[in-house]
Amino acid sequence: MITTTEQKEAQQRAAAMIRAAGLQISDDEIKKIEIVDFGLGNLAAEGVEVFTMVNTDRLAAKILVLFPNQTEPEHWHPKVGDDPGKQETVRHIWGDLRFYVDGPDTLAEGFIVPGKDDVYTLRHEIILSPGDQLTFEPYEKHWFQAGESGAVLYSFSTTVRDGLDGFTDPEIQRITVVKEQE
Amino acid sequence: MITTTEQKEAQQRAAAMIRAAGLQISDDEIKKIEIVDFGLGNLAAEGVEVFTMVNTDRLAAKILVLFPNQTEPEHWHPKVGDDPGKQETVRHIWGDLRFYVDGPDTLAEGFIVPGKDDVYTLRHEIILSPGDQLTFEPYEKHWFQAGESGAVLYSFSTTVRDGLDGFTDPEIQRITVVKEQE
Repeated sequence: MITTTEQKEAQQRAAAMIRAAGLQISDDEIKKIEIVDFGLGNLAAEGVEVFTMVNTDRLAAKILVLFPNQTEPEHWHPKVGDDPGKQETVRHIWGDLRFYVDGPDTLAEGFIVPGKDDVYTLRHEIILSPGDQLTFEPYEKHWFQAGESGAVLYSFSTTVRDGLDGFTDPEIQRITVVKEQE
Repeated sequence: MITTTEQKEAQQRAAAMIRAAGLQISDDEIKKIEIVDFGLGNLAAEGVEVFTMVNTDRLAAKILVLFPNQTEPEHWHPKVGDDPGKQETVRHIWGDLRFYVDGPDTLAEGFIVPGKDDVYTLRHEIILSPGDQLTFEPYEKHWFQAGESGAVLYSFSTTVRDGLDGFTDPEIQRITVVKEQE
């Protein structure tokens, strides 16, 4: 759960990072940035900020922002009905970005969110530079993390049904609850 | 037809515009920029420069460059086999950009390529500002043109089969022939 005040502050902060990365976002679009805490209530540690440019019934193009040292939890994109599952390509734009995928443990620059060893099972580290890309097929588990600068990246994918993603952490609720400030 | 020299010069010029627009393209990626003259042999007037970030069997994300006063000819994306046809969203990034779609004739800032009135049938002008987007459904005809600064834009779409696009101009061949310099 986040409050409307936290939501607005995070939207402004994410928009500033998007603009610092050289990309456009209009003032009207800032309020459309989705602030995702995965139901964990600790946005600074585990979360992602999502600016959706396009999301039709066939494809989606998004800009993702990670605040400094913020981690997007380990997840995968399952088959849904007739859909074979989300195929996603990420392209790094700006900042410090590490992805974790299946493979030998090479974790060095990044870190496991404290106390969460059991829900971050992948330890094969890929350090991305701006312009670097990775493609994930349906069911291919991954998680990612920003370094001290934070990070801005593209996500290009087939239709997005984030509410149906699978997560290793059973505590996660993908749809963030926003509570009016009291 | 273009020569390898024209191709290389156009790739460098397009990459410089992509970078000026604030986007990344690596030196290795510059040589992958597709220089398209539509078989018309007059790239400065009718053509487009295409940097493909992603093109899988399900989706494509591209950066398109138009040089100053360059025009992408009128075209549409047909149904192909079991595929319902390419759905495309463009998002303007940088420069002067006009789209022409079905509707009342409002052509004012742009121009019809000289001598080509019969193959540019759409005259409903939409002036885009950076961040503005348009979505085209399959078979929806469109053409677009840069002003004096040139233009850089995103194209997000379902799978691209450019070779199968339909064009109003019967002279057009979508696959550009590149000839070794003699």
